[in-house]
Amino acid sequence: MQKPLILVTNDDGITAPGLRALVRYMKEIGDVVVVAPDSPQSGMGHAITLDNTLYSKKVTIDLEHGGQEEYSCSGTPADCVKLALQELLGRKPDLCVSGINHGSNSSINVIYSGTMSAAIEAGIEGIPAIGFSLCDYSWEANFEVAEIAIKKITERALSHGIPKGVVLNVNIPKTNGEALKGIKICRQARANWKEKFDKRTNPMGKDYYWLTGEFELLDKGEDTDEWALSNGYISVVPTQFDLTAHHVIQDINSWSLNE
Amino acid sequence: MQKPLILVTNDDGITAPGLRALVRYMKEIGDVVVVAPDSPQSGMGHAITLDNTLYSKKVTIDLEHGGQEEYSCSGTPADCVKLALQELLGRKPDLCVSGINHGSNSSINVIYSGTMSAAIEAGIEGIPAIGFSLCDYSWEANFEVAEIAIKKITERALSHGIPKGVVLNVNIPKTNGEALKGIKICRQARANWKEKFDKRTNPMGKDYYWLTGEFELLDKGEDTDEWALSNGYISVVPTQFDLTAHHVIQDINSWSLNE
Repeated sequence: MQKPLILVTNDDGITAPGLRALVRYMKEIGDVVVVAPDSPQSGMGHAITLDNTLYSKKVTIDLEHGGQEEYSCSGTPADCVKLALQELLGRKPDLCVSGINHGSNSSINVIYSGTMSAAIEAGIEGIPAIGFSLCDYSWEANFEVAEIAIKKITERALSHGIPKGVVLNVNIPKTNGEALKGIKICRQARANWKEKFDKRTNPMGKDYYWLTGEFELLDKGEDTDEWALSNGYISVVPTQFDLTAHHVIQDINSWSLNE
Repeated sequence: MQKPLILVTNDDGITAPGLRALVRYMKEIGDVVVVAPDSPQSGMGHAITLDNTLYSKKVTIDLEHGGQEEYSCSGTPADCVKLALQELLGRKPDLCVSGINHGSNSSINVIYSGTMSAAIEAGIEGIPAIGFSLCDYSWEANFEVAEIAIKKITERALSHGIPKGVVLNVNIPKTNGEALKGIKICRQARANWKEKFDKRTNPMGKDYYWLTGEFELLDKGEDTDEWALSNGYISVVPTQFDLTAHHVIQDINSWSLNE
């Protein structure tokens, strides 16, 4: 039997430890091709490169673990997936996995996430896709705690199939050595960022800002990704790219916009 | 009575004719403050500036029509909204409008849209928000066909209130002079882009790509934005930023991931 072809990408760049861990896990499940940004692309959301050129380079990384076909790309995570599917892969992949992101993509963070935009791009193209993120921003984060769960979620996704129009957003809590409690299927918690701009003056006397902020959870539900993560569970949110708020169509029809 | 405060932004940049038209229409409804990118940001999706500095400049444009408070910003559309709400506006705006985009943001385009990401960012912050787009990429596009409809949708949104967690994605068909047929509340059509990469070689001998593609409509429904637009109607899609695919949570729970 042919092994499944798995496209691996991310938003932290092709040399990020999170991606290298994901590649190792995926190689136990299928044939791996990596197409990932040549530089960090955090917070890129679903940006694509429209008015600029894209470069792609075949690279060799991590021969210690056997090596595989790998390409770096000058574009965004969504660009990487588009380029992989149209130009770089010999056949349609059976799965696209993105990550493991260095940092959370739970709740509202999904909107800003380059990791998830790569998975969503694959989903739009009809490829089953999963984004994996570890809630630890450190470059030295311990990804191994999640190895078993990541492989299990991936294998189940391949055998059951992910429903059409849906990609999985998987977040893994940061642990201090204790075991993970399990895996929970969740909804996206309602939350936002309370921005604070750090205003400074550059050496030329011009004011500029750094965007900083504090995460604000607005949701007390126990069926959310935030609840799962703060209680030691891995969260899996089925995430869709039909953004229609079907439940309010009737309400807005009552505005009688044609009168 | 105090006039409503309306934040106007876009993704085509602060000098784009589409934004100037929207500013003119909004000044008939409320007090306008403009915070918009200093350069085109099409296809930026929901990108935000995390690892770089943000500049903002008070500018004066279009004094011929009376002038108003305006700021250009070096960041993405979502950055503009964050900066406006936290730093530049004296009070919380009653509405945020984004556009008028030069080009369609219907169906799957909403995912890549800088215009809509600005509106969604405002929505996340609890500000009623609407993105307006004209299905005409030309810089000389005729925005006036939609003036009455844009003002009507804006006024109804202010008087009825947009449901929480929802922003409006309004697309206006390109017309060749004939009257618009009306306004339809729609769902987002299922569609994608069939990418084609135009591969070239630069003067230094290095290969590069341009992303091009063809729009592929996969949806025959007559309740979609694409149907409305190709039949001469303005489409209004209520759009949400809770991406949870609630309808498949049960299905994925049957994977028994904890066994």
